[in-house]
Amino acid sequence: MNAAIVTIGDEILIGQIIDTNSAWIAQQLNLTGVQIKEIRSISDNHQAILNTLRDFESGMDLVVLTGGLGPTKDDITKKSLAEYFESRMVENQEVLIHIGELFKKRGFSLTETNRQQAILPHNCIPLKNNSGTAAGMWFERSGTIFVSMPGVPFEMKGIVNDELLPRLQSMINGNVIIHKTIMTQGVPESYLAAKIKDWEEALPDDIKLAYLPRPGIVRLRMTAIGKNRDYLNVLLQQEEIKLLSIISDDVFATEDISLEQFIGNLLKEKKLSLSTAESCTGGNIASSLTSVAGSSAYFIGSVVAYSNEIKINELGVSKDDIENYGAVSEKVVTAMAQNVRIKMKTDFGIATSGIAGPSGGTEEKPVGTTWIAVSSAEKCIARRFNFGEHRGRTIDRATLTSLNMLRKIILGIEIKP
Amino acid sequence: MNAAIVTIGDEILIGQIIDTNSAWIAQQLNLTGVQIKEIRSISDNHQAILNTLRDFESGMDLVVLTGGLGPTKDDITKKSLAEYFESRMVENQEVLIHIGELFKKRGFSLTETNRQQAILPHNCIPLKNNSGTAAGMWFERSGTIFVSMPGVPFEMKGIVNDELLPRLQSMINGNVIIHKTIMTQGVPESYLAAKIKDWEEALPDDIKLAYLPRPGIVRLRMTAIGKNRDYLNVLLQQEEIKLLSIISDDVFATEDISLEQFIGNLLKEKKLSLSTAESCTGGNIASSLTSVAGSSAYFIGSVVAYSNEIKINELGVSKDDIENYGAVSEKVVTAMAQNVRIKMKTDFGIATSGIAGPSGGTEEKPVGTTWIAVSSAEKCIARRFNFGEHRGRTIDRATLTSLNMLRKIILGIEIKP
Repeated sequence: MNAAIVTIGDEILIGQIIDTNSAWIAQQLNLTGVQIKEIRSISDNHQAILNTLRDFESGMDLVVLTGGLGPTKDDITKKSLAEYFESRMVENQEVLIHIGELFKKRGFSLTETNRQQAILPHNCIPLKNNSGTAAGMWFERSGTIFVSMPGVPFEMKGIVNDELLPRLQSMINGNVIIHKTIMTQGVPESYLAAKIKDWEEALPDDIKLAYLPRPGIVRLRMTAIGKNRDYLNVLLQQEEIKLLSIISDDVFATEDISLEQFIGNLLKEKKLSLSTAESCTGGNIASSLTSVAGSSAYFIGSVVAYSNEIKINELGVSKDDIENYGAVSEKVVTAMAQNVRIKMKTDFGIATSGIAGPSGGTEEKPVGTTWIAVSSAEKCIARRFNFGEHRGRTIDRATLTSLNMLRKIILGIEIKP
Repeated sequence: MNAAIVTIGDEILIGQIIDTNSAWIAQQLNLTGVQIKEIRSISDNHQAILNTLRDFESGMDLVVLTGGLGPTKDDITKKSLAEYFESRMVENQEVLIHIGELFKKRGFSLTETNRQQAILPHNCIPLKNNSGTAAGMWFERSGTIFVSMPGVPFEMKGIVNDELLPRLQSMINGNVIIHKTIMTQGVPESYLAAKIKDWEEALPDDIKLAYLPRPGIVRLRMTAIGKNRDYLNVLLQQEEIKLLSIISDDVFATEDISLEQFIGNLLKEKKLSLSTAESCTGGNIASSLTSVAGSSAYFIGSVVAYSNEIKINELGVSKDDIENYGAVSEKVVTAMAQNVRIKMKTDFGIATSGIAGPSGGTEEKPVGTTWIAVSSAEKCIARRFNFGEHRGRTIDRATLTSLNMLRKIILGIEIKP
């Protein structure tokens, strides 16, 4: 089953809000085996809506529209659908009763504007909106299903879960789509591609590969499409094993999970604790760790030592070392990692010291130069990196790289020089 | 000038990533006076790309495409454009040199895959990508401009700012568009709208108002469009004065600047220094302050005290106070702010302690309850807030609110209880 998702509303076209509805709907439909061919955002304008309905009627099995169904002036979607499907407008008793009950619960009485929301095209099936007054609508014509829902995310999600998905599931008996995501850290996309070129070219036709890069992270997503779920699962597993035999050093997880979440799960499971001593990352490692709910179980605290004085007074770094080697040095970052771990009585300590830029670089230590150390009771490993000239990216990459070094140490994986 | 924005990539159609590029591009183009008519996400599939190019060539003046330009195999956009515009592929020396320099800086050598990125259609103008290897491309045919850029957000943004907008601005003549942005903190959009309703309704026709909310911040953007720049400037200034007479308490800046950048400028200008003691914000205040280039001039450091033990040992909080009042209390947050300031020898100290959630709430202190204190040599002001039940939003709001409290204290503005 092929589908298009359409979002109606000028607020998206001027960039005032980001369309998060479409991604959520796409995910849900995808899990049901529906393949999304296009996502479109259009103006809340009669002609634009009619054009889009016409565009999709021939090529799509399903068209999902959100937006433009509210009680206020911009209730243009219902009107346009009624014209397109040549509908008479009739008051739907069931919907009217539901709206009345909703208002009673909230202690308001029904206004005329609200009553009008129960007036629907005669040739649609209303989809119940348990969280709001604008019902969804289901039309069918020449083999294409059109579903219209309000744009308010929790109302839309309610209709999708309660009404749309159950109806679709009972209709679909075609292809299954399965995804497998492999998370890599620290390798540029082009390097990864060169490494896995032969494997990629030998992939069976049922499997497609996509590279999804973000700063410091590349996700490799395999998508298998076919009739037989068990067969596709075996196929994906085989390819995953082959892939990992090539790039296992670069992989931190075989599911779509953030590195900070992965580290959190690992520390929690092994009942280990962590502290950080941050210079160039400026609290970003701590902030990324504590963005995970439940992080207080393993993350104890951090000293953000932006000035040398704090490195000396709070982290016991030797003044002589800073003078002789500079704050961005193996000596200093090692002392930071060891001492924060001891000071905060944790199993591990992470430390960073680098030149995030844009200024402060030298020939010997250009902008982007960063030392990272991870310390445990047994050892302290420090490595030097260059994360480039972009301040925000250097901070992000240093954060991810330090967490990945920690992961390797916990799991006993060698960290290459 | 009418435009369409096209995002190419299956990862959006399966809902794995949310398309934030389009909203950002729409905003930027909008500011330049370009009107977005449609935003479309399509598959990274040759035929889908050709169909879309054809669809838009007749109706649009500008088509902006992102995605599918990386160095790897799934990068189909360049091939499709070359076919559509009947291009010969030629190696572009300038682009090749740029790619070589980028790799040299990062300490990698050029692979064959990277060299291929310098091979471009002969009939496009390359748009320089200062942050990456995939150049943008500018094509023109029958009055329509087609611009293709990589999908990685910071690379795309660089090309838009450095290349696309300057080119468009020099092409568009006619109306002048001037914007004035007023930054507010801590007031929900609906409250702000109610406060300024009368002013908004009396705005002259030449001025449009947009509410641009993010967690904790609402930007109010006035846009004036007309022929005469001086006249529009006077008009905007008058409306700004009227607006500030109503909501000056809620405004932290009258230009589009982040609160952390504003605080940075303020501290630098007044030669003042700052440290933070963070519990529930977990390093996010430090991280947000140090995201600003040059922040080492005023930000000294932070103690992220996620556990009570660190609050006691590193920040001198009394164990009795934690037992009697709880870690989320005025007593504790005040001690944290005072002691971090003294310990780090700074002019100001900020402290936070709260329940970010999702668990840990009680009837007396539900999830979202947060104490914030700002301390100076003269005084320490602490306030209690409830930032709601969403963990990430509570952290962001606490960060912004604490910075805004600091701003008010520096500028001698009363902080209401």
